[in-house]
Amino acid sequence: MKLSFRWYGDNDPVKLQNIKQIPDMKHIVSAIYDVPVGDIWPKERIADLKSSVEKEGLSLSVIESLPVHESIKLGEGSRDQLIENYKESLKNLGEVGIKTVCYNFMPVFDWTRTDLNYVLEDGSETLMYDNDVVKNLDPITTNLHLPGWDESYTKTEMSSLIRKYRTMTDDDLWDNLTYFLNEVLPVAVECDINLTIHPDDPPWSIFGIPRIIKTKESYEKLLNINNVKNNGICFCTGSLGCLEENNLPEMIRTFGDHIHFVHMRNIKRLGNHSFVETGHLSKEGSVDMKEVIKALKDINYKGTIRPDHGRMIWGETGKAGYGLYDRALGATYINGLIEGVDK
Amino acid sequence: MKLSFRWYGDNDPVKLQNIKQIPDMKHIVSAIYDVPVGDIWPKERIADLKSSVEKEGLSLSVIESLPVHESIKLGEGSRDQLIENYKESLKNLGEVGIKTVCYNFMPVFDWTRTDLNYVLEDGSETLMYDNDVVKNLDPITTNLHLPGWDESYTKTEMSSLIRKYRTMTDDDLWDNLTYFLNEVLPVAVECDINLTIHPDDPPWSIFGIPRIIKTKESYEKLLNINNVKNNGICFCTGSLGCLEENNLPEMIRTFGDHIHFVHMRNIKRLGNHSFVETGHLSKEGSVDMKEVIKALKDINYKGTIRPDHGRMIWGETGKAGYGLYDRALGATYINGLIEGVDK
Repeated sequence: MKLSFRWYGDNDPVKLQNIKQIPDMKHIVSAIYDVPVGDIWPKERIADLKSSVEKEGLSLSVIESLPVHESIKLGEGSRDQLIENYKESLKNLGEVGIKTVCYNFMPVFDWTRTDLNYVLEDGSETLMYDNDVVKNLDPITTNLHLPGWDESYTKTEMSSLIRKYRTMTDDDLWDNLTYFLNEVLPVAVECDINLTIHPDDPPWSIFGIPRIIKTKESYEKLLNINNVKNNGICFCTGSLGCLEENNLPEMIRTFGDHIHFVHMRNIKRLGNHSFVETGHLSKEGSVDMKEVIKALKDINYKGTIRPDHGRMIWGETGKAGYGLYDRALGATYINGLIEGVDK
Repeated sequence: MKLSFRWYGDNDPVKLQNIKQIPDMKHIVSAIYDVPVGDIWPKERIADLKSSVEKEGLSLSVIESLPVHESIKLGEGSRDQLIENYKESLKNLGEVGIKTVCYNFMPVFDWTRTDLNYVLEDGSETLMYDNDVVKNLDPITTNLHLPGWDESYTKTEMSSLIRKYRTMTDDDLWDNLTYFLNEVLPVAVECDINLTIHPDDPPWSIFGIPRIIKTKESYEKLLNINNVKNNGICFCTGSLGCLEENNLPEMIRTFGDHIHFVHMRNIKRLGNHSFVETGHLSKEGSVDMKEVIKALKDINYKGTIRPDHGRMIWGETGKAGYGLYDRALGATYINGLIEGVDK
């Protein structure tokens, strides 16, 4: 397994010089953040990103994410041109040597939390999701802003988007994902790129909007679209672990050939679809991290794996979930598990 | 196993508030640093230390170290009073509830290194030991100061001490350790305290002075003095690992009943008795940390274990080997190993 660390580019307060001092850290997960969603990623920009990572003796191993435009998810008329652009971006990524690309198919809202600064007993701060808050909140009628909302939308644009999705069923969203994958997978195969879909976070519908990548059945449907190995999965233990019914090791053993990227994160289920993000250790949360690593060893997983969200500890400030310290603690913990677990 | 962290008291730049945010960190290893060596540790001072640790929700689990006066190691006339004082300190520690006490029997020099700021490839700084530097240096005739020297000695005192030890053989030093243990072990048994001797660091003679806690044979001799379990061992992988002949897992399985404290540290042997301290991961150094944890699980080790020396990373400054960051990375790595390794 290739241990990696997500880096938000030159503006990230966490610098590559710090990341590379984490023991055995050789791989970087990153993206280009200033190209508007739907536009083609220029090859030179990708090459620049790659060389800035390599200048520090690290490898750019995964692109997270190459985002999918809302019009593609909505199945609007403009999607064909947007999908053509997506293919061009994939080709450019392939030409620069990128082999793994992460994306998601969550409408409007990416990851959703109700609190970014929930204080744990030890004084550290973490992300939490209180289901009651979300249930009692209608983003069309209220002016509340949840962390994770895309603030680049105006209130009117956001309301219009949500209204459109509310007319859609899960099946409609599946149709649009199918349309998208049927178009882009042949290009991914040609470019030798594994596309990996990130699960919905949390893995259930919010605000009356469909969400479809949630459970074992979701992955069965995904692979029914096309069983080529490039139709891949980003296996996120923190997202999938929010549903107790998700047997993570079993899912890994079932869909192993399609897993090309792993996010290691722990959450504590609080009941009633609420949860808090914890440190990575199994004993701190609801996810049995050892059993996850064991399953990955059983499928002979050789891909990229990274510690996901960390708490804010030791007074660190920065991008919620993406500080240096607790994620680095997660990295060495994961390395201990990988070394300790016998196949 | 009880994961712990060494803390140098209120003056330590690493604060308890930071230590307790390391996942699963509940135990503190500390000492009283301002009582002159040989004097009795007052009970109130020990109780104060304990309560300052407990105020942060942590436990004071090991005293490292209760130092042994040079006159005891030299077998001088004053040793009897100094040993009586040592017994009183043990009684006071016992009354406050301390169950594990670390000490060493290294003459004059505790741990010895030739460089505290050796720069590794990733830009981190670490401790290293260059045998050629030590071999070509006579602390009596030169004015050089190695890191780790006790600067509280004057040049004349230091020279006098060294001259005395140079007249002693290893057997003489063993006699003095035997005399000391015969006196203090009955008190340790009565107080229910496990005394744990730290190995010599590095585990060979330096500057023509005897050193005796180095190898498997050393521990056989130690337990021949008295086989009571309170005659214990602080098993330091970094010190013992400097000698390739030391089979650490085998030593753990052989002397397991006497191991009450473990230091997890990694070094890279450079040949010719030189070495550099690395991050904790097995793949970074010469010590197979997984095999160490496996052996500890085999003997059903329930005692205290701590990450030892870390590198200086992320621009941290402070006490060489005892920064927060890399030791914390060691702690979560050790936790991953403990969780991952099946018994």
